[in-house]
Amino acid sequence: MVFRTSTTIKEDIQDLIVWLASFGQTDNGGVTRLLYSEAWEKAQRALEKKMAEMGFAARFDDVGNLFGRLEGTEQRDQVILSGSHIDTVIDGGKYDGAFGVVSAMIAASRLFRQYGPPKRTLEVVSLCEEEGSRFPLSFWGSGSIAGKYRLSDAEGPADASGISLAEAMHQAGFGKGIYPPPPRNDVFCFLETHIEQGQTLEREGLSWAAVSYIVGQRRFTIRLSGESNHAGTTPMDRRRDAVYAASQMIAQVIGSAKQQRNGLVATVGHIEADPNVANVISGQCRFSLDVRHHEEDLLDQFCQKIFSEFGDIAEKEQVALSIDQWMDVSPVQMNPRLTELNMQLAEKFGISYKKMVSGAGHDSQIFGAFCPTALMFVPSHQGISHSPSEYTKPEDLETGVQMLMKILYRLAYEEEQF
Amino acid sequence: MVFRTSTTIKEDIQDLIVWLASFGQTDNGGVTRLLYSEAWEKAQRALEKKMAEMGFAARFDDVGNLFGRLEGTEQRDQVILSGSHIDTVIDGGKYDGAFGVVSAMIAASRLFRQYGPPKRTLEVVSLCEEEGSRFPLSFWGSGSIAGKYRLSDAEGPADASGISLAEAMHQAGFGKGIYPPPPRNDVFCFLETHIEQGQTLEREGLSWAAVSYIVGQRRFTIRLSGESNHAGTTPMDRRRDAVYAASQMIAQVIGSAKQQRNGLVATVGHIEADPNVANVISGQCRFSLDVRHHEEDLLDQFCQKIFSEFGDIAEKEQVALSIDQWMDVSPVQMNPRLTELNMQLAEKFGISYKKMVSGAGHDSQIFGAFCPTALMFVPSHQGISHSPSEYTKPEDLETGVQMLMKILYRLAYEEEQF
Repeated sequence: MVFRTSTTIKEDIQDLIVWLASFGQTDNGGVTRLLYSEAWEKAQRALEKKMAEMGFAARFDDVGNLFGRLEGTEQRDQVILSGSHIDTVIDGGKYDGAFGVVSAMIAASRLFRQYGPPKRTLEVVSLCEEEGSRFPLSFWGSGSIAGKYRLSDAEGPADASGISLAEAMHQAGFGKGIYPPPPRNDVFCFLETHIEQGQTLEREGLSWAAVSYIVGQRRFTIRLSGESNHAGTTPMDRRRDAVYAASQMIAQVIGSAKQQRNGLVATVGHIEADPNVANVISGQCRFSLDVRHHEEDLLDQFCQKIFSEFGDIAEKEQVALSIDQWMDVSPVQMNPRLTELNMQLAEKFGISYKKMVSGAGHDSQIFGAFCPTALMFVPSHQGISHSPSEYTKPEDLETGVQMLMKILYRLAYEEEQF
Repeated sequence: MVFRTSTTIKEDIQDLIVWLASFGQTDNGGVTRLLYSEAWEKAQRALEKKMAEMGFAARFDDVGNLFGRLEGTEQRDQVILSGSHIDTVIDGGKYDGAFGVVSAMIAASRLFRQYGPPKRTLEVVSLCEEEGSRFPLSFWGSGSIAGKYRLSDAEGPADASGISLAEAMHQAGFGKGIYPPPPRNDVFCFLETHIEQGQTLEREGLSWAAVSYIVGQRRFTIRLSGESNHAGTTPMDRRRDAVYAASQMIAQVIGSAKQQRNGLVATVGHIEADPNVANVISGQCRFSLDVRHHEEDLLDQFCQKIFSEFGDIAEKEQVALSIDQWMDVSPVQMNPRLTELNMQLAEKFGISYKKMVSGAGHDSQIFGAFCPTALMFVPSHQGISHSPSEYTKPEDLETGVQMLMKILYRLAYEEEQF
């Protein structure tokens, strides 16, 4: 694709989204770009060229994050960073991550063409990894910038075929000291535009959202151990039925979450019984529990209450209960003044919007603990994500770019303080 | 093994149980004798010789049921049939089925040695199949005798490697018209001694039971179809969560069965969700339901009530509900007068016993609908069955044989009417 010189924003977005989706395209129209895979590397190297064509000074860091820089004329060391991630889940969609990268490229390059160099330095970024879909680790890109990860952290995690993160990184040409180290201390703020991956905006007929918080997430595996026995010859009052105990716990926790009506969500997505045979009482059952909210206290209270109720059920049903927590991500507040500024701009330019909580994780939660950060959503059709059916209407994508241009203009050209 | 000429009943049982378990013995001390397998065929042919050695006139029928006959002197055509099945589940125990066969052989041959030929004909039987563990069909042996199955029914069912029941039967030398056809019209009554496969006798410190009913069994697959969605971005009141709906149904049905306190048992042994991932709401869930009781009306009422409640839950949670019944076995009453006679004998000889319902299926349920039938239990240690750990104490096995001798004596030598 040759980048057309006189085009509309909608055309630019369409061109770049389709072009980027060609790297790692799957048979059914999805995209698979796992970290440091061939498709990932081709996409990231092609984006480097694309950024240069569009007027950016492009460079990689040593984990493979790609930056496109427009040098500021006054506050060179106050870098306004904007972008998202390049990696995808297996057979994911064209928009998750990709839209955040291309919207930043389009917005910044258009500002440059219209207004010349910014006062504060503008950088767009294609972060190397967010999804955690190849290695059991996520936010490798943003985490490396924010100092959460070091290069040596790449030694441990391995993919399904036993290749370590470090090996894969080396094979893709990174992690060898050729490029500058990832940690940054010059980031003034981070701005990310992402598809909502939920149905709130579409249902409410809105085009855009300023995100106030990214939820905290806690994940648990609950294991119940009773006694496997004959379904015909074991009287009801002699059973230690793990599936029955699990069913009461699941009904209890999901029912409680429904009653909260404060945005807390709880999900039991995984369940497994053993021996899992129709005519045998299952002695073992385990299920997952995923709980999310943007207030740590509320998560604490909910989990404490629920696990006490689980204990009561386990005792009543005479099953052993073990609760193993394997994820604990704290809620992260986006910068309130930056969020406020963004909403004022939406108001001013007549964009239909709302302030909302993100129930999904994003690079912005890593940056949010590191520098002033704003996360913005455009609608997802039917809330579908991580699927080839992922779709956002062109006019909504356009709104996302236009809002980003207005925010970047205010921050980079008008040197807004917040 | 040479059958010892002067031995105790306990020694006879021990000898025959251990000897029979050597056919199809597994590495961990269990037994695998699937219908028409090499191990099954060797066992059945060896039993034919053993019966002959013990004084029976041995013969097969055309499906491979093996009979050992002691011709009656007066009522030749009133055959008192006693035995159980020779086949096992995969890695099953030494007693399930086998004890019913060897106890009948020992009891009848001892009576013959002590009292000479019976007045009514005595036959012991090693039925070819009960478990349904190789082919999707059970009671092939008793069903063929009772006219429930015909030879042509063997064309359809196939085992896991695609071999049809008919092919397997031919390979083992049966189903070719070499032996007499299985249906019988000369069976006066059928008597089966079996291990309890439950813990009732052991817990109550009893040695023996007369079974009044074999429960009816209904099995269902319940399928729920909601909507798979993101665990973080889907508000609680927008979910159509199949696992949550299933958990409420399971809690409801098992809780209801517990409240019945009338012997009804309900079991959800199998559960499966899709996509079954911790951070995705499961759109699909299916689970099994096994319900048993010895009164058809009560089964009807319970299932009707439960499925109406399932319908309410499905409506509330906006999931599609489908209920597929794949097993419907009616309860079978054992012959009440024969059962009464057996209990009188237990009383008379000071055997500690109870009258109980069988929660598991047995060949006696096929014979029960065909001729006067009595089923008797000896205790199962810890209720364990279908496992190499299956065990019954030698003194309990002895009681089982002694009771059978007393019953057979009364019926075959004293020509008791009932």
